Amino acid sequence: MTRSDSLKLHADRLFPHDKHVRGIARNLYAAIKQLPIISPHGHTDPRWFAYNEPFGNATDLLIKPDHYVFRMLYSQGIPLEALGIQGAKGIVTEQDPRKIWSLFAKHYYLFRGTPSRIWLDTVFHDVFGLRVALNEANANHYYDHITELLATDAYRPRELLNRFNIELIATTEAALDTLDHHQAMQSTPMQGRVITSFRPDDVVDASRHDFVENILKLAELTGQDTQSWLGYLQALRLRRAFFQSMGATATDHGHPTARTANLSQAQCEALFKQCISGQSTDEQQELFRAQMLTELAGMSIEDGMVMQIHPGAFRNHNPTVFQNFGRDKGADLPIQTEYVHALKPLLDKYGNHPKLSIILFTLDETSYARELAPLAGHYSCLKLGPAWWFHDSPEGMLRFRHQVTETAGFYNTVGFNDDTRAFLSIPARHDVARRIDCRFLAELIAQHRITEEEGYELAHDLSYTLAKKAYKLDK
Amino acid sequence: MTRSDSLKLHADRLFPHDKHVRGIARNLYAAIKQLPIISPHGHTDPRWFAYNEPFGNATDLLIKPDHYVFRMLYSQGIPLEALGIQGAKGIVTEQDPRKIWSLFAKHYYLFRGTPSRIWLDTVFHDVFGLRVALNEANANHYYDHITELLATDAYRPRELLNRFNIELIATTEAALDTLDHHQAMQSTPMQGRVITSFRPDDVVDASRHDFVENILKLAELTGQDTQSWLGYLQALRLRRAFFQSMGATATDHGHPTARTANLSQAQCEALFKQCISGQSTDEQQELFRAQMLTELAGMSIEDGMVMQIHPGAFRNHNPTVFQNFGRDKGADLPIQTEYVHALKPLLDKYGNHPKLSIILFTLDETSYARELAPLAGHYSCLKLGPAWWFHDSPEGMLRFRHQVTETAGFYNTVGFNDDTRAFLSIPARHDVARRIDCRFLAELIAQHRITEEEGYELAHDLSYTLAKKAYKLDK
Amino acid sequence: MTRSDSLKLHADRLFPHDKHVRGIARNLYAAIKQLPIISPHGHTDPRWFAYNEPFGNATDLLIKPDHYVFRMLYSQGIPLEALGIQGAKGIVTEQDPRKIWSLFAKHYYLFRGTPSRIWLDTVFHDVFGLRVALNEANANHYYDHITELLATDAYRPRELLNRFNIELIATTEAALDTLDHHQAMQSTPMQGRVITSFRPDDVVDASRHDFVENILKLAELTGQDTQSWLGYLQALRLRRAFFQSMGATATDHGHPTARTANLSQAQCEALFKQCISGQSTDEQQELFRAQMLTELAGMSIEDGMVMQIHPGAFRNHNPTVFQNFGRDKGADLPIQTEYVHALKPLLDKYGNHPKLSIILFTLDETSYARELAPLAGHYSCLKLGPAWWFHDSPEGMLRFRHQVTETAGFYNTVGFNDDTRAFLSIPARHDVARRIDCRFLAELIAQHRITEEEGYELAHDLSYTLAKKAYKLDK
Repeated sequence: MTRSDSLKLHADRLFPHDKHVRGIARNLYAAIKQLPIISPHGHTDPRWFAYNEPFGNATDLLIKPDHYVFRMLYSQGIPLEALGIQGAKGIVTEQDPRKIWSLFAKHYYLFRGTPSRIWLDTVFHDVFGLRVALNEANANHYYDHITELLATDAYRPRELLNRFNIELIATTEAALDTLDHHQAMQSTPMQGRVITSFRPDDVVDASRHDFVENILKLAELTGQDTQSWLGYLQALRLRRAFFQSMGATATDHGHPTARTANLSQAQCEALFKQCISGQSTDEQQELFRAQMLTELAGMSIEDGMVMQIHPGAFRNHNPTVFQNFGRDKGADLPIQTEYVHALKPLLDKYGNHPKLSIILFTLDETSYARELAPLAGHYSCLKLGPAWWFHDSPEGMLRFRHQVTETAGFYNTVGFNDDTRAFLSIPARHDVARRIDCRFLAELIAQHRITEEEGYELAHDLSYTLAKKAYKLDK
Repeated sequence: MTRSDSLKLHADRLFPHDKHVRGIARNLYAAIKQLPIISPHGHTDPRWFAYNEPFGNATDLLIKPDHYVFRMLYSQGIPLEALGIQGAKGIVTEQDPRKIWSLFAKHYYLFRGTPSRIWLDTVFHDVFGLRVALNEANANHYYDHITELLATDAYRPRELLNRFNIELIATTEAALDTLDHHQAMQSTPMQGRVITSFRPDDVVDASRHDFVENILKLAELTGQDTQSWLGYLQALRLRRAFFQSMGATATDHGHPTARTANLSQAQCEALFKQCISGQSTDEQQELFRAQMLTELAGMSIEDGMVMQIHPGAFRNHNPTVFQNFGRDKGADLPIQTEYVHALKPLLDKYGNHPKLSIILFTLDETSYARELAPLAGHYSCLKLGPAWWFHDSPEGMLRFRHQVTETAGFYNTVGFNDDTRAFLSIPARHDVARRIDCRFLAELIAQHRITEEEGYELAHDLSYTLAKKAYKLDK
Repeated sequence: MTRSDSLKLHADRLFPHDKHVRGIARNLYAAIKQLPIISPHGHTDPRWFAYNEPFGNATDLLIKPDHYVFRMLYSQGIPLEALGIQGAKGIVTEQDPRKIWSLFAKHYYLFRGTPSRIWLDTVFHDVFGLRVALNEANANHYYDHITELLATDAYRPRELLNRFNIELIATTEAALDTLDHHQAMQSTPMQGRVITSFRPDDVVDASRHDFVENILKLAELTGQDTQSWLGYLQALRLRRAFFQSMGATATDHGHPTARTANLSQAQCEALFKQCISGQSTDEQQELFRAQMLTELAGMSIEDGMVMQIHPGAFRNHNPTVFQNFGRDKGADLPIQTEYVHALKPLLDKYGNHPKLSIILFTLDETSYARELAPLAGHYSCLKLGPAWWFHDSPEGMLRFRHQVTETAGFYNTVGFNDDTRAFLSIPARHDVARRIDCRFLAELIAQHRITEEEGYELAHDLSYTLAKKAYKLDK
C-alpha cells in the first residue's frame, strides 16, 4: 500500500463506457458543469459563514466530522478512540492529529469503489492541488500541505464558498436553535446566500430523552403555553416564522418511519398530554410523530414552507458507540420503509391542496419504483428527493433515475442535495450527480428516447433549475 | 417548449449502446418484428370490434381513457376537470376537446423518459404519419390531423386490427357481464380473434359496495341459488362456461394481495354467509378472496381455463379523486406483495396438478428474483407474466429478464401482455417488448452465454409462441 | 432441438460488451485465473476424498444430486420419478440412468440463460473434453463418454482435486456427525486440505422432528448432561472442539430468519426445557434458535471459529415433494429477510468484540444496499458472504457488487463460496465469480474510479486472499 501513484481526475470519469455514449455525456456535461451550485439541504456549520475563521488542521476538517470515513475504518477494527473522535467522560482518545491522519492514510485503500474515495480524491486534487495519491508513505506530506493551506486566507469559508461557485446553501437547525450565527450573517453578503432550514425533531419526537424539557424551552422562546396542544402548535408557527426570517424556505423531518395520522382534536390533546408527561409508550410516540407530520403539512400550507420527509433510519444501533461517542457516529442503519399506507392520512387531508409541497426521501430503494414514483406520479403535492445518504453514490444515483423516471418522469424530482457536513466535498458531490445525470441522459439519447436538444434542457434542469423551483428559491 | 423538432423513430431505438451488441439485437429484431401480435390480456372495448364504428376525436381516444397520461398531468397540478375527465354529479369539466388537447401538448415535455412518450410518439408517427414532434405550437395541427383521420374508414377498429397485425386479442369482462358485444361478434370474422376473459372480482370481492347485490344478480343470470355456498360455486362454473363459449381461455383476478386459503366446507359456508350478509369485516373479506382463489384454481383444473393473478395494487388511494371521478383515475398504487406464504394453501392443495396453469404478475419487483422466479422455477403449475403496469417500461422489462431468467429461465415465462385500454398503442407496446427482449438476448449472445441460433429461437418464442402456448391459444 | 451446435467456451465469456472495458477485464482475469481455488463453504461428500473411489455414471453424478437441475425440469412438468430421484417407500422411480440422461438432454434448452447452463457446459467442455453441445440426438454419446471417463483413474476425486487446483475445500457436517470420513483423511495428503465445518442446526432447531432425540444423542457423544441448559452448552463446546480437530475453522447456521435474542440464564433454562420436552410452540422454537445464535457467537469468541449465518429459506415448501422425496429437492424458496432489528440482540452483546467474526449471507437481495452493506460497513465483527444460491449467477453477482461496494467497500466481503454438492462444477463456479469480479473491476477502472494497479490487487484479493483471511485459513 505504499506505492506512489499519481493522483489524476480523468475528465471522463463516471461517464458511460461506450465511446459514442461517452461522447454525448461529455457534451451534455460540458454545457452544465459550470452552473452555480444550489445546495438546498445540508448540515454545514453556519458559524463558518458567519465569522469566516480558518478551518484548522486536515484531521479536524476531513476526518473527525465525516461519519462516512470513520464508519469504514471502524468496520475494519479501528477504534473510534484512535481516530480522535470526541468521547464521553473517561474515554481517552488520540490527541495527535498527525497520527490520526497517518492511520487514515494507511487504510485509505479500504475506500476503493466507494463514493468517499471519489469525494476525497476530488478534494485532494481540486481543492488542495495534490497530484500524488494518498498512501501511508506520503501521509505527512498530505497532512502538512492541507493544514498549511487551510491557514491561508484563500481557504477561509467565504472564500471557498465563492471558489466553489455556491449560489445558495441551506444549513439545518433544530426548532430550539436561536440561530445566532444566521442572525450574525444578516446585512452581510451571506444574507440570502446561507439560509437555515427548520428541523423540529427536537420538539416533535417524544422518544428523545430531552423532549419534555425541550417543550418547556419552546415556551420560553415563544412566550406560548406549550403545555396546551394549541399553545404548542402556535409556538411551532412562531418558530417557523422566525426561521423564515432567517431565509428558511423548507422544513425537515427525520422520523424513523413515514407514518402519518389524522386524529381528532380531542385525541391530539390527550396524546400530547401523555407525551409531555414523559410517560408515553413507543406506540404513543410514533403516533404523535405521525400526527405531527400532518399538523406540519397544514402549517406548510399556511406559510408556504416546503416540507422534507427523511424517514427510515434506525439511529444509534450500536449502544456502546452511542454511549461512548454519541449520535451520528456511523451506527445509523437503513430499515425497510413503507409509504403508501403510511402517508395516506396526511394525503387524505391535504394531498390535493395546491399550496402543499412535500419532498420525499428514502433509504429503502425498493420503494423507488414500487411506491415513491407512483405516489409522486399522481399527487401534485409530492416530489422525490435525490438518492440519499447510503445511496448517494454513482450506482445509487443511477438506480434512482432508472427506477423513478419511467413513472414519475424528471419533473417530479428536485435536483440534487448534498446533505453533508463535509463542506469541502460539496463541489465533488454535485459534480458526481451532474456526471451521473448526464450519463443517464446520454443513455436515453443514445437509445433514441429523447432528442439531444431535450437532453441539454434536462441537464440544465436537473443541475440547477429544479432545485431552485422545488425549494422555492426562485422567488 | 415551442421548438418544432422533427419526429423520428430511429430504427435502432431501445437497442444496446455497444455497436457489436446493437448489431446482434438488430438482426434478432429483424427476424421477429413482423410476427403477428398475440394480445392475451388487455382492456380494450369489445364494442369497437363488434360494431366497427369510428373512434371520435383525438382527445376522446388518446387522452381521456389513458390513466398513464392524466396521472402525470395531475401530478403537476393540472386538475382532472381541465382534462375533461367525466366527473360525478356537480363536477364541471372542460368540454372542448381541442382545448384539452392543447393543454396536453403544452405539457408533453413531462413525459420525457417515460414509456408513455415512446407509445405516444409511435402512435403519432406510425399510425397517423406525423413527422413533427408534438408541442404547444402545433397542438391544433395534431388535433385536426388525428381527428380527421379517425373519421376515415381506414381508422375504424377492425381495419386497425388488420393493419396492426393482431392475430388475437382478449378483452376482460366481469362475471356479471352478459357479453353482448362478444355475442354480436359471433359468426363474424371477429369470432375467435377477439375473445373475452373471465374476471370475477365483482362477485368474489366482498369489500365492493355492490357485492351483496352482485350475488343476487348472479342468481338471476344463472338460475342458481347463490345464497348457498354450493349454489354460488355452481353459478360461477356456469358463468365460466358461458365465457368459454365466447372464446375465453383465461380468468383474471385483481386481488389486493396474493393470499390464498384452504378452508373446510363448513368454514367456507359460514364465511360466505357472513360475506353475503353485507356485515363482513376486512379480514373476513380478505379470507374470502383468499379461499376463492383456491376454489377458482379447482375450477380451472375442471374446465382448463388458465388463471391469471394480478395482486398488489392499493386501488383508489386518493379519496377526493375517487369520489369525484371514480375508479381507474391514476390513483392506484403498488404495495409490497408477498407470494411464498400467500400461495402455499392453494399450492398445497393443487400445486402439483398437471392440469393447473397459473400466471403470476406483480407490482413489487423485489419479488422477481426472491420469490416469483423460484416459485415458477419449481411448481409446474406456475408461470410468470411479464413486467406489469408501472413496470411495463424498457427499464422495467430489462429488470424482469435480468432478475427472473437466472432461476426460472425463459420457458417459465409467457411472452408479453399489453394490458391496455389504449388500442392504438398496442403495436407500440409489443414493439417495445420485442426490442427489449432482443436487447437482452443480444447481451447473452455477446457474453457468449447462448448461441446466435438459440437467440433467434428464443426471440421467436418470446414474441409469439410462448403467449399462444401459455394462454392455450394454440389448440 | 436436435441441432448439433459445436460446444465452445469463448475466452471472453461473461466479460463486458465494450471493447475497451473487455480488454481491461481480460487482462485482470489473465492475472488471476490460475490462482488456486479456496472453497471455504460447500457440501461435497467427504467420503469421496477419504476413499477416492470412482464416481459412477453421468446421471448419478451430474443429475440426481443437483437440485438446480431437477428443479427446472420439475417446473416444466417432468416428475421427479422420471429423473430417478430416490423416493420414499412405494415411490417407483426410473432405474435406467441412460434413459434419465436422455430426458435431461431433451430438455437441456430449458437452461438457456441460467447459471446451470454455464456450469454444465463448462464441465462438459473442460472436464470431459466434449466439443458438441448437448442435445437429444447426442445424449447417448454424452452419457457413454462421461461414464467411461469417470471409470478411469484420472477422474477419481483426489485426482480431480489436483486437476481443479483446489488448495482447500471445506465440507459441512451436522453436530452429531462422527466425522468418520474426515478422520480417515488424517495423516493422508487430504489432511488440512479437505476440512469440515460445524453446522449444529440438528441440535439447535427445535422444529425438527428429530430434535428431542438429537439432544439425547448429543449426550451420548459428549458425555454431558444435555437435559440441562449448561450441560447442553458444554456439549456443543466439545463438539466444536472435535470439529476443530478435523480442521474446521467455521460454523454454519441455516436458520429461517436472522433473528437473535439475549435472554437471561433463567429464561434460557426455561425455554430449553420447553424445547427438549417436544412440546414447544413455533414462537418458542424461533426464540430458541435466536438465543442460540447469540450463544454460538459467544462460543466463537472463545474458540475463534468464524460464524456463517445463512438465513431466509422457506424449506420444503411443497409437501408432496417433501413427503415423497425428502429434503433438498428444489422446493426451498427465498423469503423476505430482515437484519437490522434481527441481529441487534447479538450485536448489543458481542458486536464490538475484536475476536468475533460473522459472515452474513442473504437470499433477499433487497437487504444488500439497505441493511447488509451498512451493517458490515460499521460493525467490525460483520462481513458479507458472496451472492448466494438463487443469486449465484452472473447477474446476481453483479447486483451484489453494485449494491454492496458503495457502502461496504471490498474489504468487508469475503471472496467467493461455491456452496455446492456438484464437485465437478466447482472450477466453473469459481471461474464465473472471477470473471464477474474482473468485469466489475474493469468497469471501475474504465470509469476512472480506481487505477489499473488497484484493479490487479483487488482481483487477487477477491479471488484468493479475502477467502483465506476471512475463514482464518492463512494461519
